[in-house]
Amino acid sequence: MRIIGIDPGTSVTGIGVIEILNGSVKLIHFGNVTLNSKDHMTVRLKKIYDQCLECINKYKPQELAIETAFYSKNIQSTLKLGQARGVAIIAGLNSEIRVSEYSPREVKKSVTGNGASSKDQVMYMVSSILNLKKQKIPVDSSDALAIAICHSFNLQSVMVPSSNSSVKKSWKSFLEKNPERILTKI
Amino acid sequence: MRIIGIDPGTSVTGIGVIEILNGSVKLIHFGNVTLNSKDHMTVRLKKIYDQCLECINKYKPQELAIETAFYSKNIQSTLKLGQARGVAIIAGLNSEIRVSEYSPREVKKSVTGNGASSKDQVMYMVSSILNLKKQKIPVDSSDALAIAICHSFNLQSVMVPSSNSSVKKSWKSFLEKNPERILTKI
Repeated sequence: MRIIGIDPGTSVTGIGVIEILNGSVKLIHFGNVTLNSKDHMTVRLKKIYDQCLECINKYKPQELAIETAFYSKNIQSTLKLGQARGVAIIAGLNSEIRVSEYSPREVKKSVTGNGASSKDQVMYMVSSILNLKKQKIPVDSSDALAIAICHSFNLQSVMVPSSNSSVKKSWKSFLEKNPERILTKI
Repeated sequence: MRIIGIDPGTSVTGIGVIEILNGSVKLIHFGNVTLNSKDHMTVRLKKIYDQCLECINKYKPQELAIETAFYSKNIQSTLKLGQARGVAIIAGLNSEIRVSEYSPREVKKSVTGNGASSKDQVMYMVSSILNLKKQKIPVDSSDALAIAICHSFNLQSVMVPSSNSSVKKSWKSFLEKNPERILTKI
């Protein structure tokens, strides 16, 4: 089963596609829809829709996962973010894909074991879970992949690590195995 | 030229279609997409998209006009409204229709002559401009028609009243001609 994760934004929309195979998850695709802030919002929305649809048609996921919301303090940003979310959701619905939503906290907790973890921690765990050794993933794509991974865990209920990888189940277990990476507060 | 006006909302989305012919505007269609608050937001978004698209395919407008935003105090409502707006905009863009945005103040000022007019005043002027004598229009459809009328005025620059109607140019001129309708404050 393939899952497309989308991290919607009006500057950058992150997209990630993963596949669940025999209980393990592997990377299929990641990318960013980079949007020009000088472009009118309608141009940006169309670009988000078209690129999400292109990805869906190309990689043929059966599920779409998206973050429920980021409640910005700026009401204008919230409205714009809502538009970007609506457009990404409708790209999935128009392709007859089931759409699931997760809060940022759920995504972080699922991937790192801690609902308040940083973007770097999420990025590290995404690379670890997908067994990406040298591949650098942009932050928005990493967030999109984290949403897809969160959904895959939810679908599988219990994560089964791939047999040939050193996948860590959570940020907590990673830290237990790598105590030298814990920086003490000064 | 036909214009579709959309007043997006997650409870009710108003839709109105008008036609500009020889400088006058006439009603083509109005309707409401009534949404069930018990339905998941994705179901509601799909319904808004599908019904906007159905209207576009049926009445073949060349232009789509939508309100820029209603800045709700409730951030969650703002996000949901953003989603509904995004979906309505993408229905127009996917049909290769030009999308224009107007602030609520611009719409009211254009239709009634007063940017701070009430919904009833807008409704009255919409009926008057479209020469609807007995036809009752629901408030959300009236708002959608007001957005379309505002766009038609903008396209025409100067409104030309239809020859066989007693169209008033603004709320102000209507009041001047109907002083008995002014209620004095108690």
